[in-house]
Amino acid sequence: MKGFRFAGIRAGIKKKDQKDLGLIYSDSPAVAAALFTRNKVVAAPVILGKEKIKKGLCRAVLVNSGNANCFTGKQGIEDAVFCSKIVAQSLHIPEDHVMVSSTGVIGAYLPMKKFETGIKEIVRHLSENCINDFADAILTTDTCRKIVNETNSIKGKPFSVIGIAKGSGMIRPDMATMLAFVLTDAKISSEDLKIILTAVNEKTFNRITVDGDTSTNDTLLALANGSSGALVNDSESRAVFHSVLEKVCMQLSKMIVKDGEGATKLVQIIVKGAKTKEDAFKASEAIAHSNLVKTAIYGEDPNWGRITAAAGRSGAYVVTEKMDLFFDGRPLVLKGNWLGPDAEKEIALIMKEKEIVITLDLNLGQETDSFWFCDFSENYVKINAEYRS
Amino acid sequence: MKGFRFAGIRAGIKKKDQKDLGLIYSDSPAVAAALFTRNKVVAAPVILGKEKIKKGLCRAVLVNSGNANCFTGKQGIEDAVFCSKIVAQSLHIPEDHVMVSSTGVIGAYLPMKKFETGIKEIVRHLSENCINDFADAILTTDTCRKIVNETNSIKGKPFSVIGIAKGSGMIRPDMATMLAFVLTDAKISSEDLKIILTAVNEKTFNRITVDGDTSTNDTLLALANGSSGALVNDSESRAVFHSVLEKVCMQLSKMIVKDGEGATKLVQIIVKGAKTKEDAFKASEAIAHSNLVKTAIYGEDPNWGRITAAAGRSGAYVVTEKMDLFFDGRPLVLKGNWLGPDAEKEIALIMKEKEIVITLDLNLGQETDSFWFCDFSENYVKINAEYRS
Repeated sequence: MKGFRFAGIRAGIKKKDQKDLGLIYSDSPAVAAALFTRNKVVAAPVILGKEKIKKGLCRAVLVNSGNANCFTGKQGIEDAVFCSKIVAQSLHIPEDHVMVSSTGVIGAYLPMKKFETGIKEIVRHLSENCINDFADAILTTDTCRKIVNETNSIKGKPFSVIGIAKGSGMIRPDMATMLAFVLTDAKISSEDLKIILTAVNEKTFNRITVDGDTSTNDTLLALANGSSGALVNDSESRAVFHSVLEKVCMQLSKMIVKDGEGATKLVQIIVKGAKTKEDAFKASEAIAHSNLVKTAIYGEDPNWGRITAAAGRSGAYVVTEKMDLFFDGRPLVLKGNWLGPDAEKEIALIMKEKEIVITLDLNLGQETDSFWFCDFSENYVKINAEYRS
Repeated sequence: MKGFRFAGIRAGIKKKDQKDLGLIYSDSPAVAAALFTRNKVVAAPVILGKEKIKKGLCRAVLVNSGNANCFTGKQGIEDAVFCSKIVAQSLHIPEDHVMVSSTGVIGAYLPMKKFETGIKEIVRHLSENCINDFADAILTTDTCRKIVNETNSIKGKPFSVIGIAKGSGMIRPDMATMLAFVLTDAKISSEDLKIILTAVNEKTFNRITVDGDTSTNDTLLALANGSSGALVNDSESRAVFHSVLEKVCMQLSKMIVKDGEGATKLVQIIVKGAKTKEDAFKASEAIAHSNLVKTAIYGEDPNWGRITAAAGRSGAYVVTEKMDLFFDGRPLVLKGNWLGPDAEKEIALIMKEKEIVITLDLNLGQETDSFWFCDFSENYVKINAEYRS
């Protein structure tokens, strides 16, 4: 994709010998929209970002891993502003056009000397070919980089949407999740970009969970620099752009869950036949967050009692005798009746798969909702018990 | 305590060679009150119990472990009724005076032949001295029996309250938790018993969590047979009885959390200085349920970032710069400022204790709430991944 350059280096912010500083640069000022965490304890870069995004323009995004710059008070804000300034100076662009994001341990000040040296170095590495370096530099407990690329065209003009994300734990998005950057060379107004981004987010990042905790740093940032000439300005072109953006964000969302801390399986729970949209949401969310469901899936056990019990406590309207439950389309419970050991044996084979779709039909109405989640293994505990040591 | 007899035997309901059938018998009809799970997927004995408790009298309680008799439809109800009948026949008491409770795997029918034989046998073992057998027979993944005994007196007449509980996983009480039986020889009306039981439950069982899942079988049942002659009939005697009942239920609650599946530590989170009661509840509940907080505590890591972030996402009104955070009374964060590595080193020693009190002062008002919870270890995952296999 033309008009965007990337870099990722090791600046020494992390203890481990890994890249920890990333930079995205748009050759021309890009239209920008962003969504941030709704957690009330928010990191300095989020406080700053909420202000900066109001202008709707952005040219450079600096991201560090290893330190969330959260719960760092005034000092944290000053540090984030200082980082923006050095980026702006080094790239000869207005400070208003620089966004910063941080992810990592909460409650430690940024090591500013490392940032100063690191920023001056990273701008020299910017290249259209270094997207992998950037994607690596923003990871924390992730085990793999997360990049998605989709193309389409509007009135014969091709355009691309590239998404890059990090996220593995502290994932129960509320408004946006973790760090995700979506770049496009389509031309679109910042108002349209915000509207489409919000709708897409609701269906993708807001429908995944790893462990039920919401990060203090969640940010979804979209930049559109228009370099392809593909113009999003009417209902048809908006629909095309919307579908491409949703495809990118859905793939990133699934990559995040699949790489969930300690995860061995990727699961989709679909709740259908709910009386209201809220019931469908509540029931699917409760199942996706249930530790008992998640540990059973890790044990490859189609424990339908735990799944239906989670729906039962969710606050959604459910009737035991109406419930149907399917694993990859095969029924295990119909109208509240367990189909017996033979059906369960068949489904035990499905549980050995790496990706499983569980469908709970409440048979009470027409509404549907869905969550993507992962199983819960001993490794999740290990990773999070030892995170700061 | 006079007037109550107990029994616990192995009836072959569980695969393992453990006691699995328990019986409580009151020599005279006892006044009874009960609270049940608010989960909408409820077990047959809960459906039956809600009806039976309306009469306010009970003489025998049959409890089995190993099978929850939940999600078992009409058959499940018929099985529970049949069990009541055999107990009533064997003890020569009205069927209305028999309550049944079940706990264990969801979705399997009761093995009725084993129940029939078991019930006929268990009535022969009833004795004032067999409370341990009963307490053992109702356990599932619990690692220890849970019995509490408190005495006091009203107008010179001594009375006792004995509590027996089981519970280790699927614990996020909502109205009542798991199975808990509270017996007293005080004399009290069923209306007063229900009022006091509800108030006590709200402060004890409704303030504990192991894993955030609410059971389909939760039952808290209180029996008062009046055999001591101590009369609860005015505000003073109600206050005495209330305090003794609360003491018993609080001790049982803490025993349940301490024996939480895989737990190595018992933690109390106190949220104070909240603007509203609801804020205090939301913040303390979110912290007690956070997997990230629980795994950090398992790792003996005073990860205050995760604690404050959980409060931040809870929906409670919080201001980062006002938060104070204490571990066993020692501060680690004051007015939103981390006190540094020396303070943290001191608190790291506190984290090695088996019981820890964490206090989060929001400094925004006068309201307080508190939850008891446990840490989260690899063993929780192991226990729940392998539960049905």
